[in-house]
Amino acid sequence: MELGKRIRVVLVQPKYSGNIGSVARAMKNFGFSDLTLVSPLAKIDGLARMYAVRAQELLDQVNVVDTIEEAIRDSDLVVGTTARGAVSRSNLLRSSYTPREVARIVSRIASRAAFLFGREDMGLRNDELESCDIVLRIPSSRIYPTLNVSTAVAIILYELYCTSTSGYVHRATSEAVSRIIFEADLLLGAAKYPPFRRKRAVRAIKNILGRSLPSPREASLLMGLFRKARVRLADQTP
Amino acid sequence: MELGKRIRVVLVQPKYSGNIGSVARAMKNFGFSDLTLVSPLAKIDGLARMYAVRAQELLDQVNVVDTIEEAIRDSDLVVGTTARGAVSRSNLLRSSYTPREVARIVSRIASRAAFLFGREDMGLRNDELESCDIVLRIPSSRIYPTLNVSTAVAIILYELYCTSTSGYVHRATSEAVSRIIFEADLLLGAAKYPPFRRKRAVRAIKNILGRSLPSPREASLLMGLFRKARVRLADQTP
Repeated sequence: MELGKRIRVVLVQPKYSGNIGSVARAMKNFGFSDLTLVSPLAKIDGLARMYAVRAQELLDQVNVVDTIEEAIRDSDLVVGTTARGAVSRSNLLRSSYTPREVARIVSRIASRAAFLFGREDMGLRNDELESCDIVLRIPSSRIYPTLNVSTAVAIILYELYCTSTSGYVHRATSEAVSRIIFEADLLLGAAKYPPFRRKRAVRAIKNILGRSLPSPREASLLMGLFRKARVRLADQTP
Repeated sequence: MELGKRIRVVLVQPKYSGNIGSVARAMKNFGFSDLTLVSPLAKIDGLARMYAVRAQELLDQVNVVDTIEEAIRDSDLVVGTTARGAVSRSNLLRSSYTPREVARIVSRIASRAAFLFGREDMGLRNDELESCDIVLRIPSSRIYPTLNVSTAVAIILYELYCTSTSGYVHRATSEAVSRIIFEADLLLGAAKYPPFRRKRAVRAIKNILGRSLPSPREASLLMGLFRKARVRLADQTP
């Protein structure tokens, strides 16, 4: 199932209709459409419509439920969002995840995930967060960490969107990357690296490739370099 | 100079005061404070104040100027933002950068950068974008790519904030990276790569390193590998 269809955005007791509209717009901007409101204090009114701009159909299709339980009933993974975190005594809250980390997790599984966003004034309560599988905190300034709810939704959906589109297609497979590392290791051997330094150098190459996500072309050029250098070294070694 | 002080957010002819307030809030959420308006069509009114919530001082300190030229006068790097891109005939627009790429670029330089955001209805004109150093496009759905301006500001500042707080300190200098590339090139020469393939392989290594931002330790291990392999090859070549 494509990403856009398996993510649900859940607003818990939203107070301002403008925020509901802004959330709908941000969702459509990144290809999401499942918006659920838990006992909303605001209506889908003219202001909501104004802020939704070209995402009117999301407002038409919005689900309204009474409890969080109903909103997450068919979700395999429940992500709670909070601006608190570092200072909490709760283990779950202290070990919150960043949007990028959650995007990686969600992109790897094929299940349905619900993202819970709290009330404009007080967010999600601790007991609500404790009942989530993952707590997500958007890195932000300690001085003023509380984002507008539609901003928070946008940043998280942006990360999900980037993770799902970036690089899936144009990245070398992990097998190709493993072959580069294998060839680099052989070259280090041929260059007579002492075992300890050889191990560290392989580790460094592995880390660099892990972060840079090489394209298939880059991977083949790099592997070619390591192999060619090694073969020439081996040829010439008496 | 810390990141928060060297980034300027420039809104070109903003039309809605609520957006100005929302932008101020998003700026403070990520530790930025320099907000400049170019011939605004809206005033800092009660609505702006309401949307700024706890970022009132940014509205008090806002700069208002008449032209983009005045807004960017003391900036070393000017980044224009657009929702258009892929379809443009302009080279600059077609090769737009993502927020993450721009964040990496900005985190590496110590200069002042201005980020230009266009009018709510039509964005920045092509000639305005052409006069920027970098064009930034937030990856988004083809069906509805136009983000609210405060959402766009928030996503870009979020990326800048994440890049500046994660691992800024532990990166190899660009000189160290250049030395790796230099050594890789020498190794390719020693391995008797034909000039055309050598050039492409150097390019691939450069791109990979550019994206992976190696640590000083990784850089020195990688340079050591290239140099050692090359020296051994040269030694053994009759």
